[in-house]
Amino acid sequence: MADSERVTAGVLIIGDEILSGRTQDINLNFIAKYLAQYGVDVAEARVVADAKDEIIGALNTLRSRYDYVITTGGIGPTHDDITADCIAEAFGVGLIEHPEIIAMLSSRWGGELTAARRRMARVPEGGSLVRQVQGPPGFTIGNVFVLAGVPGAMRSMMEDVGHRMRTGVVVVSRTVRVDGTGEGVLAEPLERVAKGHPTLALGSYPFYGPDGYGSNLVVRGRDGAEVERTVVELVEALKAIGVEKLSAVDAN
Amino acid sequence: MADSERVTAGVLIIGDEILSGRTQDINLNFIAKYLAQYGVDVAEARVVADAKDEIIGALNTLRSRYDYVITTGGIGPTHDDITADCIAEAFGVGLIEHPEIIAMLSSRWGGELTAARRRMARVPEGGSLVRQVQGPPGFTIGNVFVLAGVPGAMRSMMEDVGHRMRTGVVVVSRTVRVDGTGEGVLAEPLERVAKGHPTLALGSYPFYGPDGYGSNLVVRGRDGAEVERTVVELVEALKAIGVEKLSAVDAN
Repeated sequence: MADSERVTAGVLIIGDEILSGRTQDINLNFIAKYLAQYGVDVAEARVVADAKDEIIGALNTLRSRYDYVITTGGIGPTHDDITADCIAEAFGVGLIEHPEIIAMLSSRWGGELTAARRRMARVPEGGSLVRQVQGPPGFTIGNVFVLAGVPGAMRSMMEDVGHRMRTGVVVVSRTVRVDGTGEGVLAEPLERVAKGHPTLALGSYPFYGPDGYGSNLVVRGRDGAEVERTVVELVEALKAIGVEKLSAVDAN
Repeated sequence: MADSERVTAGVLIIGDEILSGRTQDINLNFIAKYLAQYGVDVAEARVVADAKDEIIGALNTLRSRYDYVITTGGIGPTHDDITADCIAEAFGVGLIEHPEIIAMLSSRWGGELTAARRRMARVPEGGSLVRQVQGPPGFTIGNVFVLAGVPGAMRSMMEDVGHRMRTGVVVVSRTVRVDGTGEGVLAEPLERVAKGHPTLALGSYPFYGPDGYGSNLVVRGRDGAEVERTVVELVEALKAIGVEKLSAVDAN
């Protein structure tokens, strides 16, 4: 795919609990699918511990390399929630208590607005809010969007992220499912067709099904007409070598 | 935790399908839990596309930074399976067809041993095999273990990885579950106890349950006795501020 057409994002997942295995991350998958609707490609993802140097290092690399960065995790009220501090330090700015978040928290907690709860109002100078339906917001500064780690809150915040991005040309994806023939046979026609279409990405995702080995052959690219032509060409190439059990699968 | 006691691993997940959202990765979580049994900490994880420069760049960073690297994905027979090529290039060695894998494939496929299937026999010079119960092996070279991306195959290969590692002191983890009290109140005693035990990691993982907001407070460290003492101290600190609904949860 021509790089000029690509809008890219890096995803930075912050949290000891993902690296220890305590929690199965499901945020990357949601973010990838969500951004795909806007034609934004997740080009890389990193998972780092709740450690200042790790977070700042990864953030600075990703924000210089990609059009956008989405971070998840570490914006709650406890001492191990250090994402806001790290983002501010990476951008070389201070942290302020955002008046709108303080107002929101005051109306929710009144006299019980503890120092810990106030931590959730901290936003780097120059940042603006990323709202969720219910609960304290995340924020954005520069090309970085800082979201909650709890999946429900993160998903709600993503609704306030997509529309702020420069959108790209949406990738069209078509899948040809082959049953009863394994990759060892499919590889040759697949590669031959792929070589004829260097701007597309052709991939093979094998499975073991009721007819033995099979594979989902995926054709992806930003030129929808070329994707469709390539699928036809691939199906013909497969039939030519005697592959019979072929079916089209919904785009994914 | 004292770094001298830590054995670390980086995980490199290779595959367009994870970044596009087509596939939900479940390998990182398995690897993290698996290595934890050997006292090996996953210190960082990266997800990269099926692109040579991306794979080599991430691999070289991770293998210089951590004791071990585990990669998943890209070792099948199709043209987009380029992991072996990238590992060989990163180590500055050639690829050979490993005689044991060729023998295995020949006995399975006989005259149908296609060029694509032979690709799965390619191992960097100086590498050795990482076996799975059924199917072609992965390999290891230097401090890098190269595994399949299909979860069943990856898990089977991990059984041939753990015993080859230098083991560390296993991290002990205890969870105190609090129902009906949110992080805004729990943060203060949690931080106070955490500050008294700088070699331990104390974290808070909030949830919304039948009694409203609650949190799992997790105490982790390599000195089991200190972890147990800290849990007692934490429970006392929580009771002292009037938290009533406390329960111990299985280690995780």
